[in-house]
Amino acid sequence: MIKFTIITLFREALEPYLNTSMMWKAVDKGLAEFEFVNLRDFGLGPHKSVDDTPYGGGDGMLLRCEPVFAAIESVKAKDPSAKVILPTPVGEIWNQEMARKMSGDAHYIILCPHYEGYDERILAIVDYKISLGKFVLTGGELPALVIIDSIVRLIPGVLGGEKSAEIESFSNGDNLEYPQYTKPYDFRGMKVPDVLLSGNHGEVDKWREEHSK
Amino acid sequence: MIKFTIITLFREALEPYLNTSMMWKAVDKGLAEFEFVNLRDFGLGPHKSVDDTPYGGGDGMLLRCEPVFAAIESVKAKDPSAKVILPTPVGEIWNQEMARKMSGDAHYIILCPHYEGYDERILAIVDYKISLGKFVLTGGELPALVIIDSIVRLIPGVLGGEKSAEIESFSNGDNLEYPQYTKPYDFRGMKVPDVLLSGNHGEVDKWREEHSK
Repeated sequence: MIKFTIITLFREALEPYLNTSMMWKAVDKGLAEFEFVNLRDFGLGPHKSVDDTPYGGGDGMLLRCEPVFAAIESVKAKDPSAKVILPTPVGEIWNQEMARKMSGDAHYIILCPHYEGYDERILAIVDYKISLGKFVLTGGELPALVIIDSIVRLIPGVLGGEKSAEIESFSNGDNLEYPQYTKPYDFRGMKVPDVLLSGNHGEVDKWREEHSK
Repeated sequence: MIKFTIITLFREALEPYLNTSMMWKAVDKGLAEFEFVNLRDFGLGPHKSVDDTPYGGGDGMLLRCEPVFAAIESVKAKDPSAKVILPTPVGEIWNQEMARKMSGDAHYIILCPHYEGYDERILAIVDYKISLGKFVLTGGELPALVIIDSIVRLIPGVLGGEKSAEIESFSNGDNLEYPQYTKPYDFRGMKVPDVLLSGNHGEVDKWREEHSK
């Protein structure tokens, strides 16, 4: 059983994705659990503020330590084994091997920061710093969903065809996919390579290997 | 004005994200427009089928050419200048430079495939093949949102602090962020570096450059 607790200000933007398709199927089968914590509940003062301006000057509002630590500690009080993931541009670039290693039984707390920034001292309570790649987003919400999606689909029983997760892209290092074709045989003059219709499995495998990208 | 037409079977999973925060702000200001096309509307037969089994054998269902071409052509009939983006593991790895190049006036059609696969002949109607990175997701929906988010936030007028998009990570090649701090000065014994409180801008800049990751 894998559990994700998502700390965010934008639950309404994330929850619908987790309620559809494969993610919902994982929950329905008891293989995954999703939980939301509203960072605002741990905000400071009458406006429940969670951010403030940077020391030393500069644009943007930074996530403050107090609400973040309080939110994470409220989750860890119930499950001290939970690990904290922070999506951040300075994290390790996410890849399939990391997804596989994290797809066992575990409880992950994902903190979604605005990408304008967070107080550096927040790192003291973070176990995994993860970056999606060399680009900038408006917040940690999409990285949170990407991390969850790529992990959950690897849990045995989540995908329909059990083999799918194994044979596809990246499962064997940098081996990419081969071209695939389905009906119709002839689409506007573009035809399926005849070897794929031959019924000769050896030839099909050979063609696919030769055409892998 | 930038416009995104998203071809998907899961509009309800994507739309809430585009209705929140920065993305909504861009629409509200007339700087961006989002439109959905339901691929199912172009499905075949009584079940409006959009996929079928692969020639040559194998797991998974592949997106068929007919519904995809019909859906894209329905959009291009109204705007022949629209360009087609396909999120796919064999695409070019998404980065900030690509986001910047695509953030001008344009109309992009994003086709969200299941990652189980698509008929190779679909590439004939695709202008940009884009991969988020070396990992596998259940579909093209999250890559679509990531691409949109990273492009839209670069449009002048979308971010609150206009400078934010310029100074942050990756905007200057591989220059990453420096540590940032906000109040309180002392959080559980962890203190803000004194130079950031000095008011000496030269020293602050020097410290930030030295601590950039």
